[in-house]
Amino acid sequence: MKSVNIGELARALDARSWGDLTLPVTGAAEPASTGPVGPEGGMIAMAMSPKYADALQPGSMAILAEGMDPEVYGLKAAIFAPRPRLLMAGLTRAFDPGLDIAPGIHPSAIVDPSARIGEGVAIAPLAVIGANVRIGAGSRIAAHVSIGRDSVLGENCVIHPGARIAHGVKAGDRLIMQPGSSIGGDGFSFVTPEESGIEEIRRTLGPRADIHAQHWTRIHSLGGVELGDDIELGANSTIDRGTIRATRIGSGTKIDNLVQIGHNVEIGTDCLLCGLVGVAGSSRIGDRVVLAGQVGVSDNIVIGDDVIAGGATKIFSRVPAGRVILGHPAVKMETQMEIQKAMRRLPRFAQQLAKLQETVTRLLEKG
Amino acid sequence: MKSVNIGELARALDARSWGDLTLPVTGAAEPASTGPVGPEGGMIAMAMSPKYADALQPGSMAILAEGMDPEVYGLKAAIFAPRPRLLMAGLTRAFDPGLDIAPGIHPSAIVDPSARIGEGVAIAPLAVIGANVRIGAGSRIAAHVSIGRDSVLGENCVIHPGARIAHGVKAGDRLIMQPGSSIGGDGFSFVTPEESGIEEIRRTLGPRADIHAQHWTRIHSLGGVELGDDIELGANSTIDRGTIRATRIGSGTKIDNLVQIGHNVEIGTDCLLCGLVGVAGSSRIGDRVVLAGQVGVSDNIVIGDDVIAGGATKIFSRVPAGRVILGHPAVKMETQMEIQKAMRRLPRFAQQLAKLQETVTRLLEKG
Amino acid sequence: MKSVNIGELARALDARSWGDLTLPVTGAAEPASTGPVGPEGGMIAMAMSPKYADALQPGSMAILAEGMDPEVYGLKAAIFAPRPRLLMAGLTRAFDPGLDIAPGIHPSAIVDPSARIGEGVAIAPLAVIGANVRIGAGSRIAAHVSIGRDSVLGENCVIHPGARIAHGVKAGDRLIMQPGSSIGGDGFSFVTPEESGIEEIRRTLGPRADIHAQHWTRIHSLGGVELGDDIELGANSTIDRGTIRATRIGSGTKIDNLVQIGHNVEIGTDCLLCGLVGVAGSSRIGDRVVLAGQVGVSDNIVIGDDVIAGGATKIFSRVPAGRVILGHPAVKMETQMEIQKAMRRLPRFAQQLAKLQETVTRLLEKG
Repeated sequence: MKSVNIGELARALDARSWGDLTLPVTGAAEPASTGPVGPEGGMIAMAMSPKYADALQPGSMAILAEGMDPEVYGLKAAIFAPRPRLLMAGLTRAFDPGLDIAPGIHPSAIVDPSARIGEGVAIAPLAVIGANVRIGAGSRIAAHVSIGRDSVLGENCVIHPGARIAHGVKAGDRLIMQPGSSIGGDGFSFVTPEESGIEEIRRTLGPRADIHAQHWTRIHSLGGVELGDDIELGANSTIDRGTIRATRIGSGTKIDNLVQIGHNVEIGTDCLLCGLVGVAGSSRIGDRVVLAGQVGVSDNIVIGDDVIAGGATKIFSRVPAGRVILGHPAVKMETQMEIQKAMRRLPRFAQQLAKLQETVTRLLEKG
Repeated sequence: MKSVNIGELARALDARSWGDLTLPVTGAAEPASTGPVGPEGGMIAMAMSPKYADALQPGSMAILAEGMDPEVYGLKAAIFAPRPRLLMAGLTRAFDPGLDIAPGIHPSAIVDPSARIGEGVAIAPLAVIGANVRIGAGSRIAAHVSIGRDSVLGENCVIHPGARIAHGVKAGDRLIMQPGSSIGGDGFSFVTPEESGIEEIRRTLGPRADIHAQHWTRIHSLGGVELGDDIELGANSTIDRGTIRATRIGSGTKIDNLVQIGHNVEIGTDCLLCGLVGVAGSSRIGDRVVLAGQVGVSDNIVIGDDVIAGGATKIFSRVPAGRVILGHPAVKMETQMEIQKAMRRLPRFAQQLAKLQETVTRLLEKG
Repeated sequence: MKSVNIGELARALDARSWGDLTLPVTGAAEPASTGPVGPEGGMIAMAMSPKYADALQPGSMAILAEGMDPEVYGLKAAIFAPRPRLLMAGLTRAFDPGLDIAPGIHPSAIVDPSARIGEGVAIAPLAVIGANVRIGAGSRIAAHVSIGRDSVLGENCVIHPGARIAHGVKAGDRLIMQPGSSIGGDGFSFVTPEESGIEEIRRTLGPRADIHAQHWTRIHSLGGVELGDDIELGANSTIDRGTIRATRIGSGTKIDNLVQIGHNVEIGTDCLLCGLVGVAGSSRIGDRVVLAGQVGVSDNIVIGDDVIAGGATKIFSRVPAGRVILGHPAVKMETQMEIQKAMRRLPRFAQQLAKLQETVTRLLEKG
């Protein structure tokens, strides 16, 4: 959407409009970065709350919350946003110029002759595409991306510079991989000839009989990674391949930067995993689960549908569906709030308890 | 191991076998993905516990735990696994096709003429090898890997796509670097002209006399990184070079994805560091130490041999050898279990304490 | 500084010197790695504290702390360091050979004809420079780096191998990007058609009325990233672009490895952010703030100037200027110390409280 007038923009956003709808809109900005526009149009101010509207200048175009009056601000035209964040989605999509890759396959890219490249695919300089790879129509592969043999990408995927797809990865349509993200590295899976210290303490919950030297033997990863449609993987995030079966992530799940997904993990649909989250091997996460930043999930854990875990929650055991959790270790959010309140008063408790003991001792002596 | 019959496979795994040992095995899978085989063989089912065995179909081949009866499941042939995870190591190694790099040096790779490349080394498209680099026999360097001047790799290393080795790194044999991992970035080391706020609070444990603006001056990293044999580094993990001496990691130590190892750190042999672990500068970690996911180790800490730290443990001070620790901050695992139990009861404690105070006050008034 | 004698080195370091100042210095090392030098000079030993000086050999050159006597150790020459870490900065800078990139633009690099490349810029093999990029004089771009259209780098920047700069990033002078670091990936910003579960629990602090399936709609990132001068970004760290306005980082701020900076974040000048720190979207951090390793900052938080947060501190709410904080959740460092002491005694408290209740009950019965 290179050139659009405010009326067309409102229709594209499915939003109500007001004023001179013929004015061209070239982009969107904060009110402080916009000003009065002439017939050639210009930037539209994003003033979806009265507190932002103070910076609006008369004669400008703006997006307002429902209920705000464009005449009060002396606007030339306006679009109304009943749910501002939702309108932001449409608006930013309309003006996103996207990744700059020329159409076709750049001559410096190295594409195996056996690869099947769909219609309208763009492959940037110095990308490397392995044997039997399939890339769906309309996908765009940026500079320095590598894709290993037998991997499959659906249609309209966008793979940013330096992203890594190993061999045997199957992805659906519209996968977005941010720079440096990695799908299909080997799982972290090792074994010792006899019971290891970790196995022992999981059994005993602490005590160890005797400690002796052992080397780690590698368990190789033969499983791949299977991704649904509409998945996004943030910059430098990593998803490991499975051991025997594939690591699996459901459609619509969005993963932020620097997130680690271990081998054999299964994640449902429409989840959000924020920055620096770690999910250890073989854990299973339901649909619509939200894990805020730095959340940790132990291995072999089951997390039900619709669970929401607040920032830095550390999850060591099963979480039932629908639960809202917080803390280290994770407990119900309400419980955590009470624990935190009590913890801050803990030093005072200690004093009060000591004093009470003294008083009771005196009472006993008296008695 | 492309084509192998079940008898040969059992011998390779040093495991007991049963049934028609001439059947060819083409790979391993979960029971649900396998079925009856004819004389041409097929996939062997991994059913190392009775709960997985329910999905076995008569006429198939399977790996069973010791004590399970292949005739009960109507199998054609079986291999017995006395320690299933250990057998997994051999089995997955047998069927891992490995990284797909053609033999020799790809013409698009840029290899400095002074580099010494061992026999049988494979270098993939668009790799960049610097001056005086040495790569040991049989090593495989994937696409988009860069290796800086004077670095040395031992034999049979596998460096996955986009991994980064800076200058002056010395690695032993069989190093595995997963995609995007980095060895030899500069340490994070800065100094202010006068005492900084951090130095001050480390001295005072909190209070600050006066706060004033200061700029950070960079301490450059002249030390390299020295790695023993059989080390693995996970996807997008990072190991910084030392300041004067090298950062050092002992043989057999395995490091998962998104792990940060600071400058001057020394790590012993046969350790496991799981995803998102951070070890700050100049800390020393003994042999056979296990740090679970998201563990943090402060700078200049010493951790003894055979320490095991549970998930998200935060280590701020010395840990004696053999200790099993957990929590934020780290305490003995048993202590942490008690603390957590008590913490969950903390809000109730607060109520009980308040009530008790009331009661005692009344008792006192009566008395 | 290839060849320098000890007198010149002392002057460069602005430090006092002693002995035969004509001896050439070729580098610096720990005392154990140095020895007696002849007229051809050699390595200078770093012995800035008496405990390191024991390993000094007679006839060698050393850097000593003020007050140490070079004659006691039989040195040939010495430099005195009133503030050893500060002298380390100058010393390591003097001997750092730097990134090995040949002058000029390597023929395998792919540079858009519209890019403006400053004087003395070095571009290594296989780098990719997009349309309208500007690179300031003296900057050095390593192998496999990509820079997207319209991005601007100042003078004397050093961009290590595999670092990623997306489109529309503006950086000042002397930016250092360690291997695999990424600036300008898209923000992690999604919206649902109706109120999402996250919005609901932020409003209710826990309880949820009803749970229903919703898909996430992407909010695109139109803002860029703006960086001041003298910024360093560690290996595999990531800075996301803003939604409408730019994500901004002030001059002199240093960021360690595997750090995540979310969209719209603003960070002031001269901050230190250590390994695995995460700062969620739209938070604002003042000047000279120090966040130790694994610190987490929630979204939309304000952190004042001169705040220092200890390792793994989790920050969920506003922090006033100058505060020293620690813990999960963050509280004043002194408070955290008391909480931790009390927590370790918590299991005992529980016992004492139970016993006290019993005693008081008995007293009541007696009464």
